[in-house]
Amino acid sequence: MQKADIGLVGLAVMGENLVLNMESHGYTVSVYNRTVEKVDNFVKGRAAGKKIIGAHSIEELAAALKTPRKIMLMVKAGKPVDDFIELILPHLEKGDIIIDGGNSHFTDTIRRTKYVEEKGILYIGTGVSGGEEGALKGPSIMPGGSLGAWQYVKPIFQSIAAKTEDGTACCDWVGENGAGHFVKMVHNGIEYGDMQLISEAYFIMKKLLGLSPDEMSEVFDEWNEGDLNSYLIEITRDILKYKDEDGSPLIDKILDAAGQKGTGKWTGMAALDLGTPLTLIGESVFARSLTSMKEERAAASKTIYIKDTKFNGDKKSLLEDLKHALYASKIVSYAQGFVLMKAAAKEYGWNLNYGEIALMWRSGCIIRSIFLGKIKEAYDNNSELSNLLLDPFFKQKMEEAEGSWRRVTAESILNGIWIPAMSTAINYFDGYRSDQLPANLLQAQRDYFGAHMYERVDKPRGEFYHTNWTGHGGNTSSSAYSA
Amino acid sequence: MQKADIGLVGLAVMGENLVLNMESHGYTVSVYNRTVEKVDNFVKGRAAGKKIIGAHSIEELAAALKTPRKIMLMVKAGKPVDDFIELILPHLEKGDIIIDGGNSHFTDTIRRTKYVEEKGILYIGTGVSGGEEGALKGPSIMPGGSLGAWQYVKPIFQSIAAKTEDGTACCDWVGENGAGHFVKMVHNGIEYGDMQLISEAYFIMKKLLGLSPDEMSEVFDEWNEGDLNSYLIEITRDILKYKDEDGSPLIDKILDAAGQKGTGKWTGMAALDLGTPLTLIGESVFARSLTSMKEERAAASKTIYIKDTKFNGDKKSLLEDLKHALYASKIVSYAQGFVLMKAAAKEYGWNLNYGEIALMWRSGCIIRSIFLGKIKEAYDNNSELSNLLLDPFFKQKMEEAEGSWRRVTAESILNGIWIPAMSTAINYFDGYRSDQLPANLLQAQRDYFGAHMYERVDKPRGEFYHTNWTGHGGNTSSSAYSA
Repeated sequence: MQKADIGLVGLAVMGENLVLNMESHGYTVSVYNRTVEKVDNFVKGRAAGKKIIGAHSIEELAAALKTPRKIMLMVKAGKPVDDFIELILPHLEKGDIIIDGGNSHFTDTIRRTKYVEEKGILYIGTGVSGGEEGALKGPSIMPGGSLGAWQYVKPIFQSIAAKTEDGTACCDWVGENGAGHFVKMVHNGIEYGDMQLISEAYFIMKKLLGLSPDEMSEVFDEWNEGDLNSYLIEITRDILKYKDEDGSPLIDKILDAAGQKGTGKWTGMAALDLGTPLTLIGESVFARSLTSMKEERAAASKTIYIKDTKFNGDKKSLLEDLKHALYASKIVSYAQGFVLMKAAAKEYGWNLNYGEIALMWRSGCIIRSIFLGKIKEAYDNNSELSNLLLDPFFKQKMEEAEGSWRRVTAESILNGIWIPAMSTAINYFDGYRSDQLPANLLQAQRDYFGAHMYERVDKPRGEFYHTNWTGHGGNTSSSAYSA
Repeated sequence: MQKADIGLVGLAVMGENLVLNMESHGYTVSVYNRTVEKVDNFVKGRAAGKKIIGAHSIEELAAALKTPRKIMLMVKAGKPVDDFIELILPHLEKGDIIIDGGNSHFTDTIRRTKYVEEKGILYIGTGVSGGEEGALKGPSIMPGGSLGAWQYVKPIFQSIAAKTEDGTACCDWVGENGAGHFVKMVHNGIEYGDMQLISEAYFIMKKLLGLSPDEMSEVFDEWNEGDLNSYLIEITRDILKYKDEDGSPLIDKILDAAGQKGTGKWTGMAALDLGTPLTLIGESVFARSLTSMKEERAAASKTIYIKDTKFNGDKKSLLEDLKHALYASKIVSYAQGFVLMKAAAKEYGWNLNYGEIALMWRSGCIIRSIFLGKIKEAYDNNSELSNLLLDPFFKQKMEEAEGSWRRVTAESILNGIWIPAMSTAINYFDGYRSDQLPANLLQAQRDYFGAHMYERVDKPRGEFYHTNWTGHGGNTSSSAYSA
């Protein structure tokens, strides 16, 4: 029997669909699953008549593969990945490759890359985005790990990946050890932000402007024709016009309590840890937590009395403002996300190509959009760009949007509409573009109560001063006391 | 020679001051420092003529102590704590007590309590707040760990702690293992929030109203007479009127780039991890990161063109609004912090007394305020209170503040003033009090692209539905595919 080009472990829907995708591009795939029954069901079912070889053990799987062997894990993140690595290692030879395609935390991938490489085996941790349909028809793939493995995996991954309009694969080498999983994590965080922003736009249309779901669907349809063109805007349009069995809008029947998986919170935690202001994704993760407190909110709405206010301005004009507000807020979110990746690259020693990352997200994944093409252009024009807000195209967009953005945000706050992501976006914009912020007071406070010292505007950076604010207690700063 | 009541390791300023505080309350203290020279300098210097016994080794320190021995570590958080535990353990007997008084991460304290207890020794991890002056004159002390140790440590800690007006010590048992350090961490996070809010109020006065530092000092002085009375408002008043050597306000010479230590970010990370919306502290931590990008902001201010707008309203009236906005935002911050502690108590099995925690912060520490007395009352009235916003006193305060709060926030955003903490506060308020939030759209999106399923408003909680939104792709939800 012909040997397989690649092996895959874990026949849940994502795994199965990736296998079928690979096979449809001419690759022979060997498959294994811990519950071996699933292997037979798959081979007899969806895989029937295809170049897909069922294996009933890891040993059989390894034996079925061409060398260097490539074994891709599509199993639950966490301990199962470590367990399978241990099961697989004894059956591999030097130069073989283990690939983890799940949503592993990037620090686990850093650890595993080191561990596996020490045994002479190569390791890839890769993000795979696009959901079930993406896995089958073309996902966005973000691989990182052992560079030496890339040449062997590249043809397979790039053939099954989504393609941009000019045919470029939405898959390229991201960087060392955990870089691929880090970039996938940020992708998911940005997805949280995009979804929250669209939800806020919907909320403003519903509560402030009183539009019906059908009317809102038309607005999103119109927006999808312009700068905001994206998969999430498109499905929002479809969702809003979808009718329940009784003919009423289904959206009004859905409970407003959002769930979350780990990657959003991981992105926020990584940003806090790296000291990078990722406020919009942070607010979006917290926003999901707040929505999930449904019973408590319902009770609070009966306790805290706020009188309803009415919007008396021009609805059509506010709707136009809203489009700009959404776009400008989205720029902030991506700007923050790319700054986070830059900070991580510095911390973990990765050499990230930000234009390529934008391109990988351009198609196949949930956040795919025209917008990402503009980000690619921004980094093509200036690979050292420190912040997307400084790119001429985005800078101009924000300046154009500014008035609209302020009006929508202020009007929503005056009318009690919850818009945490839009609010933090405009605040970040105003903070980032401000030479002066009030942290001089904060530094004075820290020096007052903790002798933490401060720098001065009229002295060089790196020179620290302490003031004896109270006139008693001495001039000694806390650092002079360091143990 | 008389044996000592307690031993202390680590003679930096906090350690020295705690020793002097204990001694002044009648306790004999034995002291040790890794750089032994410091021991002699201290004994001959600040400790001269006092019941303070220098020890030149851990062995000597242990030998100088009454049993059960109590040894308090005031060393840098992290590895030094583990190292000293190892050095101390061989010199202890069953029932002796190790106390860590540094800013250790609560998960380390959970681990260490278990480890030390397994060896028959008791462990306390305690927060100590109030800076150098507090350590000397009466800090807020938040101990947790081995309950059996508390009876021996209690008399010393409660005598040296700060006292409220009625003489109650700002120190009581917090809870098991890491509870003390968790509560101290949240204290520090709240301190970040308070400082950011005050900075934003200062920024609005300066940029929007054009007040001078002296004028602002008067405003803070006035505020300090009312509901906002607190240590941080008081020192802000003093800072704003402080003159540099040339007679000009010192505040204008201080660089607006804020530093941070770990505890603020830890609080945000814990909240993300526990799925609790702690948006104000989160924004405050991110705000410090943004201010620290001073050079980048200065450059951006020259690139992004925003025309200055002028505030044309009534300044006096806005100043009154600002007072209410600050107070209402502060309520939100504390409400979020207490919800975080509730979530942690549930997760880690602590039995926290929220009224007692408010009382411990009432005096001695940086966030001390009249406000905390009101929180104590709220939990005295209802120990099961799920959120401070629902307490009748605070609820009324927020309803009174509401109009002012909205005006200040909207006006600031319209005029490009950076107020991330106030903005997130009002958004949390509006989210928490809303029966309906737009997460129904978000759940629909997740079901659309990931088959994550949703609940319905017209069906019981816990029943999940999937819609075949596109009319193709089948009705199977992702959970049906779980590996």
